Amino acid sequence: MPTRLSNYFLKTLREDPADAEVASHKLLVRAGYIRRQAPGVFSWLPLGLRVKARLEQIIRDEMTAAGAHEVHFPALLPREPYEASGRWEEYGEALFRLQDRHGADYLLAPTHEEVFTLMVKDIVSSYKDLPLTIYQIQDKYRDEARPRAGLLRGREFTMKDAYSFDVSDEGLEASYQAQRDAYERIFGRLGLDYEIVSADAGAMGGSKSEEFLLPTPIGEDTFVRSAGGYSANVEAYTTPAPEALPLEGLPAALVFDSPGTPTIETLVAHTNAVLPRTDGRAWAAADTLKNVVLAITPIAGEQAGQRSLVVVGIPGDRDADLKRAEVAFAGAEVEPATPEDFAKHPGLTKGYIGPGTSDAPVLGAESSTGIPFLLDPRVVPGTSWVTGANEHEKHVAHLVAGRDFVADGVADIATVRDGDPAPDGSGPVTIERGMEIGHVFQLGRKYAEALGLRVLDEQGKLVTVTMGSYGIGVTRILAVLAELHHDDRGLVWPRSIAPFDVHVVATGKDPSIHETAEALVAELDAAGLEVLFDDRPKVSPGVKFGDAELLGVPRVVVVGRDAADGFAEVWDRAAGTKEKVALDAVLGEVRG
Amino acid sequence: MPTRLSNYFLKTLREDPADAEVASHKLLVRAGYIRRQAPGVFSWLPLGLRVKARLEQIIRDEMTAAGAHEVHFPALLPREPYEASGRWEEYGEALFRLQDRHGADYLLAPTHEEVFTLMVKDIVSSYKDLPLTIYQIQDKYRDEARPRAGLLRGREFTMKDAYSFDVSDEGLEASYQAQRDAYERIFGRLGLDYEIVSADAGAMGGSKSEEFLLPTPIGEDTFVRSAGGYSANVEAYTTPAPEALPLEGLPAALVFDSPGTPTIETLVAHTNAVLPRTDGRAWAAADTLKNVVLAITPIAGEQAGQRSLVVVGIPGDRDADLKRAEVAFAGAEVEPATPEDFAKHPGLTKGYIGPGTSDAPVLGAESSTGIPFLLDPRVVPGTSWVTGANEHEKHVAHLVAGRDFVADGVADIATVRDGDPAPDGSGPVTIERGMEIGHVFQLGRKYAEALGLRVLDEQGKLVTVTMGSYGIGVTRILAVLAELHHDDRGLVWPRSIAPFDVHVVATGKDPSIHETAEALVAELDAAGLEVLFDDRPKVSPGVKFGDAELLGVPRVVVVGRDAADGFAEVWDRAAGTKEKVALDAVLGEVRG
Repeated sequence: MPTRLSNYFLKTLREDPADAEVASHKLLVRAGYIRRQAPGVFSWLPLGLRVKARLEQIIRDEMTAAGAHEVHFPALLPREPYEASGRWEEYGEALFRLQDRHGADYLLAPTHEEVFTLMVKDIVSSYKDLPLTIYQIQDKYRDEARPRAGLLRGREFTMKDAYSFDVSDEGLEASYQAQRDAYERIFGRLGLDYEIVSADAGAMGGSKSEEFLLPTPIGEDTFVRSAGGYSANVEAYTTPAPEALPLEGLPAALVFDSPGTPTIETLVAHTNAVLPRTDGRAWAAADTLKNVVLAITPIAGEQAGQRSLVVVGIPGDRDADLKRAEVAFAGAEVEPATPEDFAKHPGLTKGYIGPGTSDAPVLGAESSTGIPFLLDPRVVPGTSWVTGANEHEKHVAHLVAGRDFVADGVADIATVRDGDPAPDGSGPVTIERGMEIGHVFQLGRKYAEALGLRVLDEQGKLVTVTMGSYGIGVTRILAVLAELHHDDRGLVWPRSIAPFDVHVVATGKDPSIHETAEALVAELDAAGLEVLFDDRPKVSPGVKFGDAELLGVPRVVVVGRDAADGFAEVWDRAAGTKEKVALDAVLGEVRG
Repeated sequence: MPTRLSNYFLKTLREDPADAEVASHKLLVRAGYIRRQAPGVFSWLPLGLRVKARLEQIIRDEMTAAGAHEVHFPALLPREPYEASGRWEEYGEALFRLQDRHGADYLLAPTHEEVFTLMVKDIVSSYKDLPLTIYQIQDKYRDEARPRAGLLRGREFTMKDAYSFDVSDEGLEASYQAQRDAYERIFGRLGLDYEIVSADAGAMGGSKSEEFLLPTPIGEDTFVRSAGGYSANVEAYTTPAPEALPLEGLPAALVFDSPGTPTIETLVAHTNAVLPRTDGRAWAAADTLKNVVLAITPIAGEQAGQRSLVVVGIPGDRDADLKRAEVAFAGAEVEPATPEDFAKHPGLTKGYIGPGTSDAPVLGAESSTGIPFLLDPRVVPGTSWVTGANEHEKHVAHLVAGRDFVADGVADIATVRDGDPAPDGSGPVTIERGMEIGHVFQLGRKYAEALGLRVLDEQGKLVTVTMGSYGIGVTRILAVLAELHHDDRGLVWPRSIAPFDVHVVATGKDPSIHETAEALVAELDAAGLEVLFDDRPKVSPGVKFGDAELLGVPRVVVVGRDAADGFAEVWDRAAGTKEKVALDAVLGEVRG
């Protein structure tokens, strides 16, 4: 049955909504697909619901093809399983928590690892029941601090989340690959030009993880890629360590006065002035060692909430990247040390912090301060540095790693830059921005262990199951498609998820035009096309054309003055063409 | 593609779950359709999801046929619209409330009148955009005190809720009728033998309301019906008032000692002993006036939370029905007065309360106690009563309504009984129990007024819109169908919503049997049937048959020993028959 605009729940807006920052948000609201109910919380109008349903069907098809079984879990879940996994606390303020009338704790689930694990524990008992992949398309909740960008980052949003269960690591690898392949097919059908990047597993735990990113300047994720095929989320990039250098023959450490050098730039200039190098080049920022003091607060476990300091020495031409630091110190909140932190540690001379010397170490577990000291991977033995001498207005030059100082370990937290080497040797990387549209994780046995999911193996022995988790943001992808497919007049949907196949516009007051349009609509409908028919009386052609462009149905057929001569005008919104077509050729043209 | 049990997410249970009280709950869990996650909160396994999807499709079809447009609103909603309508408070403990990280109040919506009203206000501006009916199929939340009976009364449940918007009362009547007709078609397609009863609008406000009830002893609703066609929810039943009687010639009121008469029974016996009637019959409970003291606490408005007392005089052969009392005192909590309430009102002599006399009234706004006094509709002027004399161990006989006492009004709160007259004169009613499966309401202008939904009428004048609200409990109906369609071996789904059309069971170890079964499955699948194929190796025929009966697919085809001779066995679960059918006739038989 064709859908008639004269009787449809739709109102288009000429102006962008005041709170909208990105094109998809503006256009989906203006074209009457969605409306905001609260920050990050949206209602779906009939047009939006149609697009969402088509998108979900594509995902469902490919999940079925991948052998996954559809289930549906509640959004409202009890605290206990999330307590057992540690995520009740780890999620922090991003978790919507509530109590029922009896005071029992509940949450609105942000993802469902725990309850899928428990369900499988309830239903599966033997290796014979595995491998198993189950999925749902379901509404999830995250209390984002600043929900913005419309559907790109909502607080209530629809996800497809799948979970795989296997006995062996090889099984997990196969299940992971099946989902990864399904994602490639889904994004392929949607015409999305994605990049698969290695990702840190972050709060999800586990061993292997990849993100499907859509390269776009409005993306919230930063990733790196090399011409040779390496690509990774910036958080997952690992700095290759250079070879150690010989310690022999290096100049001895030399402490020198360094008044007026509060920054790396001033320190470098001063050092060049008072201690010119003899090898023909000048001191550079990369020759200095910047000792960054971080405050670390574990989120869960016995140390939860106990703030402590750590110092990381990184080359002075780089900064600490707090997101990368969060990966390095997974399970803890990380922030720069505050004046209060420094006040508690008088052994730290702010602006002049250094490792000290082998005889009198100032940083490290065995030092005078006892503060753990970690080094950037580039600070290998035999490298020589200008750094703080732990006295006001004093620095030290020629301080050699492995000779004058050692550290407690490595921390790869420095910023990544264009030109840094790919860790797999595939050449220099470039930095890109991307939007996450899918994520595949090898969770391993973390959740199965926490929740006791074990099955009998072929030898009749109980073994812990290994799991994967696989997510696609359904509502986010819808917004991404709107970002990619619009022009200055409105949306331009790809055929695969357009709300209708064709949008027929009748213009003019002549009743015969409307009769012709009705007949054409009936023909298109009978041919199995989803037809939107703008049959509104008393609406001007200009308004109808504007709405047709804004709504973004890929093909528009205008039945107007030429109808009497047997012609209509067929628009291809994506190509931007408008063509005069004989009425009896319209069906073929629109289908083609 | 057929679904293979060898690779399906299913585990059947031989035992009923411990927490299950009703057949649908027991069977849906045992047959692997659902699992409990928390009290009143369920997960849907693949089988359950299939049934739910078919049910939703039937509802969606009929909503489309009724001209309703599908939308989808969030479950997480801000407090403000519900504050404006008064329901934030009126819902009491049944509402799940929560706060976001910024401390803003939210709720999990139990129904969506407010936000549908606001959405229509946002989109519709003229009478030309109306009438309009929009609906959604969506998960709702109510914090039931004792969630039990499985899906019949959950705390997270799926509803179809529709809302109509009209300019005129006639328009509302037509929109209401269109939804009512759609409900009749939906329940007809599901083969449900429903009763449409008048209902009180309760917390929803508004003027006209009908419930679709399924007569069943496990129903939580009580309704009455007469052979002449009257039917109503017990809360909506109105007692017809008899004609007033002449006051002349009645005996004078007579106070008498009544020691040891704490109950109506003892009072009646004592009165017959000390004051035998002269008209040839004995005093009966129906001759006494029981003065019930109720505590009323308004839920919203200026008096919210202020507890006060009211006394209702009802014939002594009936009790107060608190649910009916909640209708009579709509917008307030009603409970029997407590000892603390009595302590605050020494004018009430517990066990001996009466209206007093015309000269010295004890009950009523103008009386010594000042406590409002209301009367059952049967207590018309000229009726004569035995009731309390407001002194310990004293009653009064021949106290005549309209002569010796008057009241402040009428309150129709007494229990309804088999044999009571239908208010429309269609004869005596019988009391039945039923399960609510649908509800249609004429809300009128309550929400539109509270939220300012007005449109321009034909004269260009702003008029307030009138609304209807229409609900079907999707998950509840699924449970109701399971209640109605099962036997002692398991579920027996009607074809309209069965998870599969046919369940093929291959038994025996002969590989040729499995080849025959595979070929048959392929034939049935190619014919467009949804096929479940029990291809599990190493599972005994007994277990397979038991599972087939438990799962409840309406047709089961067993391919076993007779396959070599070209025969299968076809079961009709509903008819309870098992028939030997030639393999090439199975498709016709199963389709038939």
